[in-house]
Amino acid sequence: MSETVMVPIIRANGAKAEETEDAVVLETPLTLYFNNEEIVTLLCSPAQIEELALGFLLSEGFIREFDDLIAIAYDPWDKAVFVKGKNRAPEEEVMSKRFLSACCGKSRASFAFANDARLAKPQASAAVISLADAHAYAAHLQTQPLFRATGGVHNGGLAFRGRILFTSYDIGRHNVFDKLFGQAFRAKIDLADHVIFFSGRVSSEILLKVAKMNLPILVARSAPTDLALTLARDLNITVIGFARNEHLNIYTAPQRIITAAT
Amino acid sequence: MSETVMVPIIRANGAKAEETEDAVVLETPLTLYFNNEEIVTLLCSPAQIEELALGFLLSEGFIREFDDLIAIAYDPWDKAVFVKGKNRAPEEEVMSKRFLSACCGKSRASFAFANDARLAKPQASAAVISLADAHAYAAHLQTQPLFRATGGVHNGGLAFRGRILFTSYDIGRHNVFDKLFGQAFRAKIDLADHVIFFSGRVSSEILLKVAKMNLPILVARSAPTDLALTLARDLNITVIGFARNEHLNIYTAPQRIITAAT
Repeated sequence: MSETVMVPIIRANGAKAEETEDAVVLETPLTLYFNNEEIVTLLCSPAQIEELALGFLLSEGFIREFDDLIAIAYDPWDKAVFVKGKNRAPEEEVMSKRFLSACCGKSRASFAFANDARLAKPQASAAVISLADAHAYAAHLQTQPLFRATGGVHNGGLAFRGRILFTSYDIGRHNVFDKLFGQAFRAKIDLADHVIFFSGRVSSEILLKVAKMNLPILVARSAPTDLALTLARDLNITVIGFARNEHLNIYTAPQRIITAAT
Repeated sequence: MSETVMVPIIRANGAKAEETEDAVVLETPLTLYFNNEEIVTLLCSPAQIEELALGFLLSEGFIREFDDLIAIAYDPWDKAVFVKGKNRAPEEEVMSKRFLSACCGKSRASFAFANDARLAKPQASAAVISLADAHAYAAHLQTQPLFRATGGVHNGGLAFRGRILFTSYDIGRHNVFDKLFGQAFRAKIDLADHVIFFSGRVSSEILLKVAKMNLPILVARSAPTDLALTLARDLNITVIGFARNEHLNIYTAPQRIITAAT
């Protein structure tokens, strides 16, 4: 499937304008059905469609174990993915309603949604990452062809001990994570000792995606928010941000970083 | 209200690491109630809270006219905004379900949601924008203090004939638009001949926000998607992208651009 479309544009440099054309990234709606019930319509880049669907259902708790998936089918004409699974859908109350733990309880973390509190678990992994590997993952993000051609997508990848296993890109930040989650699920890989790297900013929703994927280490090219870092501390997730040009910031759980021996 | 918090970090340059601290942008959950019903929990930057709430309700069709707003109150302790309005909430069916117009009908545009098709209207405005003004708006985005300090927020503004009327920033792209929508609503300004400018990428959801705000011209620093441009052509909205460093691309409805007389 083509990733871009050429469109006619007028390009202006200062006050001068000329007609030309430019590559624009594709965006498509995708509707997910789980056990014949319409769950959500996502807007996404049209690649790794089934992985996106699986990752979303994993992230929202519709699917939990490898055996939960019975069948998956993509209808490109109707832009819909039909998933059959063992589990029942979570209660709607759990899915979308605010979880009122912000001002009480033992945790410093503030979960905005009950479903997140249920699915995001503290990371006990003893996995480590070297600064050299972190720099290498961040540099790899810059090589993604569609990012280079259009500037219009986020991208990311999953790695284990310096080796990149999966990559994904999407116009939506969350979709990048779901596509990686779906790929790992299909390969039946437990991510408990893996690293995820990502081109975008790290909000609380992104941090919770990482926790739900059971990942101990996140390397991001962009900035985190304070709420994402509060959750990361509570969940013992290592957050590296602003990883670019041989620089990076280590925000949380630095025990997983190997700095150079001196 | 403070916009950032200082956090301890380890900063690495190549293989060298040192302890220091860095400013991190704030993120907070905000729950909206409309006529005592819980509508949504947004994650946002804690500024222009009431404007964000109003903009969201306008964008989703809960509020339509200036007279529809009866009262608004923000409870900072509970991180909730309570809005009382004249209109009834849209049917849930309309709010979230997929709108099946993608493959039929006269329009080339594909609305993913029925609520968007109901609220996004073609723009008939004869307003124009000069290249000099477009460059100036894009340059203004780079001056936002929080963006400069943390790199962690999107920002945007509303302008009329070269004059900037409102600005906003947020960790979420959509929130930037809702905060501007809310500000214009409070000032009772009809945006039919105004310009909106924005730091981020232009997806279909962003383009539909612009249409719902009744705005004819969008200037963005980043890339549009093909679906956003298809909608922009159908809705006769002028989209300028990649506006940075005296360069910009004009994608749609170029009749509103004044190029230099030669």
